Amino acid sequence: MANNNKLNNQQNILIIGAGLCGSLLALRLGQRGFHVTVYEMRPDLRKTDISAGRSINLAFSNRGNKAMKLVGLEDKVKELCIPMNGRMIHDKEGNTFMSNYSGRDYEYINSISRGELNSLLLTEAEKHENVTIHFNKKCKSVDFENTTALFQDYNTKDEFVEDADCIIATDGAGSALRKSYYLGKKFLFSFSQEYLNHGYKELSILPTETGNYKTYKNALHIWPRSSFMLIALPNLDGSFTVTLFLSYAEGEYNFNNLTTPELVIEFFQKEFPDALAIMPNLVDDFFENPTAALGTVKCSPWHYKGNTLLMGDSAHAIVPFYGQGMNASFEDVVEFDKVLDQNLDSWEAIFETYEKNRKKDTDAIADLAIDNFHEMKGHVANPIFQEKRKIEMALEKEFQNKYSSKYSLVTFNENIGYRQAMLQGRAQDKAILNMLTDKVISSEDNLKDILDKVNAETEAILEDDRIAGLY
Amino acid sequence: MANNNKLNNQQNILIIGAGLCGSLLALRLGQRGFHVTVYEMRPDLRKTDISAGRSINLAFSNRGNKAMKLVGLEDKVKELCIPMNGRMIHDKEGNTFMSNYSGRDYEYINSISRGELNSLLLTEAEKHENVTIHFNKKCKSVDFENTTALFQDYNTKDEFVEDADCIIATDGAGSALRKSYYLGKKFLFSFSQEYLNHGYKELSILPTETGNYKTYKNALHIWPRSSFMLIALPNLDGSFTVTLFLSYAEGEYNFNNLTTPELVIEFFQKEFPDALAIMPNLVDDFFENPTAALGTVKCSPWHYKGNTLLMGDSAHAIVPFYGQGMNASFEDVVEFDKVLDQNLDSWEAIFETYEKNRKKDTDAIADLAIDNFHEMKGHVANPIFQEKRKIEMALEKEFQNKYSSKYSLVTFNENIGYRQAMLQGRAQDKAILNMLTDKVISSEDNLKDILDKVNAETEAILEDDRIAGLY
Repeated sequence: MANNNKLNNQQNILIIGAGLCGSLLALRLGQRGFHVTVYEMRPDLRKTDISAGRSINLAFSNRGNKAMKLVGLEDKVKELCIPMNGRMIHDKEGNTFMSNYSGRDYEYINSISRGELNSLLLTEAEKHENVTIHFNKKCKSVDFENTTALFQDYNTKDEFVEDADCIIATDGAGSALRKSYYLGKKFLFSFSQEYLNHGYKELSILPTETGNYKTYKNALHIWPRSSFMLIALPNLDGSFTVTLFLSYAEGEYNFNNLTTPELVIEFFQKEFPDALAIMPNLVDDFFENPTAALGTVKCSPWHYKGNTLLMGDSAHAIVPFYGQGMNASFEDVVEFDKVLDQNLDSWEAIFETYEKNRKKDTDAIADLAIDNFHEMKGHVANPIFQEKRKIEMALEKEFQNKYSSKYSLVTFNENIGYRQAMLQGRAQDKAILNMLTDKVISSEDNLKDILDKVNAETEAILEDDRIAGLY
Repeated sequence: MANNNKLNNQQNILIIGAGLCGSLLALRLGQRGFHVTVYEMRPDLRKTDISAGRSINLAFSNRGNKAMKLVGLEDKVKELCIPMNGRMIHDKEGNTFMSNYSGRDYEYINSISRGELNSLLLTEAEKHENVTIHFNKKCKSVDFENTTALFQDYNTKDEFVEDADCIIATDGAGSALRKSYYLGKKFLFSFSQEYLNHGYKELSILPTETGNYKTYKNALHIWPRSSFMLIALPNLDGSFTVTLFLSYAEGEYNFNNLTTPELVIEFFQKEFPDALAIMPNLVDDFFENPTAALGTVKCSPWHYKGNTLLMGDSAHAIVPFYGQGMNASFEDVVEFDKVLDQNLDSWEAIFETYEKNRKKDTDAIADLAIDNFHEMKGHVANPIFQEKRKIEMALEKEFQNKYSSKYSLVTFNENIGYRQAMLQGRAQDKAILNMLTDKVISSEDNLKDILDKVNAETEAILEDDRIAGLY
């Protein structure tokens, strides 16, 4: 917790949004001695039961954990975690099989409650007297030339302006600062929002009457159906949060035409009969819970001079299919902290360095997350993908320090950036799929031979792309 | 000009914008018998001398010409064209060499005046009594639920609302309809605007006192300098329109720091001495003309139900480096016309089919145009790229119907879509660059051997990508 930064003393930092990223950032900047004020539009979630339309549980893995280590919360967070060792695939007949996330036993992801984790971070942040958090204050716009933000109090409706030395917006995919950048037209602001044709709806599998899990606890359950899918993640109370990913308008059943209880039950009976059997509350959940969109947001620049900075989902909202949304936002704070350690002499230099280091990686995880949507939906469809998975698990198990699949590079290798993981992982996938197709390798071969061939072919693919100027 | 469309009679079509795409669309829909009303924000360019900050001349090639054939204007447009057979590269010492666009003599691009071409299209459109064009009427917003548009008269400032059976917005990169889609938030609208770090500024090389060209007429002149470049296209009056592409903020000289006549002349003296020698008007041009941004716009959906449709730059603005901006917009009209020939029974079906057919191709040319920026800037830097070019020219010359480079596929093969041209062309580039690097081929080899190897390797690259699920 050394405090070396030239800018530290007397600097007032205003953080917009006390979600997962904002509360972690407040905690870390508090630890570094900054004067931090946080404004959050929602009520204090430690005092009110709110889900606010956002997912109830999340996948927590190594990159997120690296951030928890940084702020000294690794042990406390571990208590909130339910390990998920792999995907449990459910077919239409209700048969299941387990597909581990890694060939190494110590590599797994965790289901964690958004609310519990956010509460912990808020409480830890508030332990620092130089950190103050205000709730029920919604940011309406940011004057990024003058480093001020306009807020409205939820209860009184009064509006007020807050001033700071710099403003960091961790206010999520609908960021007020990003909107001010876009509408301000004061500089060239590259921006994209891309929606999938699919939306999602949260459902639930409640605990048994004795509070136990109705299906296997330590897995991420998937019912892949090629053009849509259902997933379920365990909660500490014995329930599972279930999410249906389905097209709005395409296919025989879709969100637009599932308009009656009969149709919903018919759909689940046909596609997910084993899930339906443990979801007596399906119809109520389906019609009470909103259908939400799946969007990716990218933009640049993230900062305006040394005045304002976007961080977390406000800078890079991604779809949930790699389980990396929260992990990426937590990693933002780790990367920002690294830049603070460089002792640069202005916020502008800090923000610029941070974006330069970081954006390539958040762009990569956005693209990987969309890829994984297609992979997850079609998980059982392609036998050659299955054989690839089998080989990679064997390689990971046999060569503990020499091979990691794309999934492992992204999820369990927190010291490799997302972009590097993407390039290496995609080249490996391409190498294995092509060598399987061309019968250069087979899952029956000697593992050391397979490893050598995969490594050589992966390097050849990367080299060919480099020569063609593709990176 | 058969009029088979079920929707044709009684249908009133409102077109927003009478630029190149809007005036061509009005002409074509007029030929098909629709009742067409066009509103244009600027004055009639046939009566006023306006450049409106847009480029004065443009590259016109096969895809654009296909549209001119469709409306019967091929011969009239040819009179406006100056053929450019290749790029004339200028090095720092003023040495030049010509790099033809194709190994086939009949494949070349043309320099054409935006104003002259637009005037011709307006005049031809107005020959149809079912086509009416109003000038000085700026569209402020579109009510896409009710198929009405709000306009303001430039002179009187009066606002008025126009109704139609459908509205097609050909109102360019800053489209009012696209803005209404984005701000309306009535449906999921995927949208991106991406800016390059470079901007551009138009300059000029004036004719000699006797009205002749000061440098070689039938070429697109390029002064490539790796991180920036200057280009020049000929005009019919003996002048050239010159464009400087330069970073706003990076490098020793940039748009932000070229603030005095001395600096501008110093920069040109150092980097473009032969150009400077024929640009006595440089300083005036430089400080009188605006610096403009280079942006790419993509979005989806282009249409709202059967009410409204984006076409041309409003749907897909691209950077100018492939010389395809106008050609792509003209091809939009050709593709739209093809869909009209299908006799679909609603505007919604027409718009949906058009977007489904077309968007993959406009996405591709947007990406190709950005690639070409990097290729043009660095044209002389990489010897292996030069050798590739030499081989491709030889292949095109020797095998008239069997080989086309990526540039030729994009520019001269109007019956291949941009996306197909991109996939094939990129695979060819990768094949040749890698085989040259690995010394599998050399420009000294027998051409038939080279062709066979290039074709085989290209097909292998495409197949590897297909197996890896990359398309």
